Amino acid sequence: MKRLSVAVLALAGIAAALPAVAQFAKPEDAVKYRKAAFTVMAAHFGRVGAMVQGKAPFDAAAAQSNIEIATMMSKLPFTAFGPGTDVGDTRAKPNVWSDNAKFVAAATKMQDEMAKLNTAAKSGNLDQIKAAFGPVGGACKACHDDFRKE
Amino acid sequence: MKRLSVAVLALAGIAAALPAVAQFAKPEDAVKYRKAAFTVMAAHFGRVGAMVQGKAPFDAAAAQSNIEIATMMSKLPFTAFGPGTDVGDTRAKPNVWSDNAKFVAAATKMQDEMAKLNTAAKSGNLDQIKAAFGPVGGACKACHDDFRKE
Repeated sequence: MKRLSVAVLALAGIAAALPAVAQFAKPEDAVKYRKAAFTVMAAHFGRVGAMVQGKAPFDAAAAQSNIEIATMMSKLPFTAFGPGTDVGDTRAKPNVWSDNAKFVAAATKMQDEMAKLNTAAKSGNLDQIKAAFGPVGGACKACHDDFRKE
Repeated sequence: MKRLSVAVLALAGIAAALPAVAQFAKPEDAVKYRKAAFTVMAAHFGRVGAMVQGKAPFDAAAAQSNIEIATMMSKLPFTAFGPGTDVGDTRAKPNVWSDNAKFVAAATKMQDEMAKLNTAAKSGNLDQIKAAFGPVGGACKACHDDFRKE
């Protein structure tokens, strides 16, 4: 129940933040947009990943700003998976649309975990960031496994 | 002098918001990132453009959230024009790097005008948004004319 409430709140938050913005002149624009949003999100998430994995020195301020950006970006791509956008140069599988409720749940899970990581990042504590980082990566992977072509 | 101060403050703001984030594993990643950031920025800016031009009904909340996102996005691409990133599938002209101070000034001008538009959008007043919209478009165009290939 708690998880459902969080998911619903997250969806409501997105809807409130982005009223009537899911508009693209043509389906290919939606594809380009969502891929771009994922690219920016992944870049910032990846920089924190390097710190978590010890491949880059821990910089609390950099971790915080990167995750702040990644969190905002996490809200954007899913506005661009509307009906009719299964076109062109996309790796989205058809079940994004045929099993849309599950896709939305998977997307919401990622947004939810990213928001928790954002809270952890504000603590400036690497252990807290490490603990919150894994579930975000897991949520990314789970959604990719189910809904993205290789 | 005032303009210079604004530019310096804007640059300082970017530096404060994004400490040590201008890091890419390879130059092609920087190119992909900056193009993605421009794509997302342009989508949200364009939605407000449609309202300004009367092609879409004015929705104050949507204008505000779109420009808020565009403003955040405006800070991102210029972290990815570092030395050695004149590679691959880029439309950046060589003078981005050979005349970098002018490029930075043009980028800062756009960010500055976008921030003013963001302030105007918070007013919820279409006339104020219209007045602030043009200078952003002008700053985009000026930079494209000088620094982007056709």
